[in-house]
Amino acid sequence: MVDWDVYLVTQASLSAGRTTDEIVADAIDGGVGVVQLREKDRTARERYELGRELRDLTREADVAFVVNDRVDIAQALDADGVHLGDDDLPVPVARDLLGEDALIGRSVSTVEDAREAAAAGADYLGVGAVFATGSKDDIDDDEYAIGTERVAAIAEAVDIPFVAIGGITADNAVEVVRAGADGVAVITAITQADDPTAATDALHSAVEQGR
Amino acid sequence: MVDWDVYLVTQASLSAGRTTDEIVADAIDGGVGVVQLREKDRTARERYELGRELRDLTREADVAFVVNDRVDIAQALDADGVHLGDDDLPVPVARDLLGEDALIGRSVSTVEDAREAAAAGADYLGVGAVFATGSKDDIDDDEYAIGTERVAAIAEAVDIPFVAIGGITADNAVEVVRAGADGVAVITAITQADDPTAATDALHSAVEQGR
Ligand code: NI
Repeated sequence: MVDWDVYLVTQASLSAGRTTDEIVADAIDGGVGVVQLREKDRTARERYELGRELRDLTREADVAFVVNDRVDIAQALDADGVHLGDDDLPVPVARDLLGEDALIGRSVSTVEDAREAAAAGADYLGVGAVFATGSKDDIDDDEYAIGTERVAAIAEAVDIPFVAIGGITADNAVEVVRAGADGVAVITAITQADDPTAATDALHSAVEQGR
Repeated sequence: MVDWDVYLVTQASLSAGRTTDEIVADAIDGGVGVVQLREKDRTARERYELGRELRDLTREADVAFVVNDRVDIAQALDADGVHLGDDDLPVPVARDLLGEDALIGRSVSTVEDAREAAAAGADYLGVGAVFATGSKDDIDDDEYAIGTERVAAIAEAVDIPFVAIGGITADNAVEVVRAGADGVAVITAITQADDPTAATDALHSAVEQGR
């Protein structure tokens, strides 16, 4: 079973001078449940090289490891799965390539897209952006905030687990989980924290509290 | 056996208002041997959708079909292989994912890189940019022209087939093949031609003449 409570999306360029390896190791110490290799500004080759370290770290810690966008990099790294957006390969195509056991996630921001992704066979959703974010790098395709009412509507509409993303902090995580999210996905709330371990732990406590 | 004589790299945005399907159908009529799905400015999803048409067209015509950069799109399309650059997954990783029968190409511009790619298991090379190109979209990573002497040096250094790319026309294809290239790869010499069928045929004749 995947622990959805705290889901870290990596981005070295937003990590206050620290490497993604360091951030992930700290987040593991803080109780992170899922790590997504993102690193949008890196080449496929660089993501593959970086991912080999992350695969080792996450495997040792029994933390789920997924790759953003690229099914082939996920396969090459023996990742647990892939996280897909509107511009990526369709979920059923990724399923054919990765198999039944793979964890396939899909970014959505509407109830309709959430239903479609679940029907297409996604294992989980990334729902957002819930709140406006300072760094627009924190979210993928959507520039606007969907709010916790939309989170509640999506929780009502689909049965698969989902993490909320976009402007999530230890302060607002409680209300996001109360609205129905199974966990919270963050970049900068962990990557730019003075103490990423403590930040992960604080998010984890907030999620538990909201449940 | 792959027919390397004329290798078409697709780019709808350089196709004078025609679709890539139309260009590829015309190039097949003109005797193209290999089609590479490139379309750098399209999303993975769009390339996948477009590639389904190209896969059908090329399969019917018994023309080799490879996908630029993305091993997963190649797999999803049941393409014959993939063409990789410096920023993409390493050749041995692609080989693991695609298997022994896949056609794996590698872009190189130096003798040293050509040797390395052959040693890493590439089936063929794209060598260039041979000539300066008007549209820099015609070449991948290199802004400078390596010239036919470099083509000859690479022909001397490696045993795997290679196509020359970058500023190739029916006028200069003869000297490129005389220098040792097994064929010529082009975008605009076909995609922007008034008559892509005639342009492909003219390139083919020039390659035969250079041999
Ligand atoms: Ni021929």
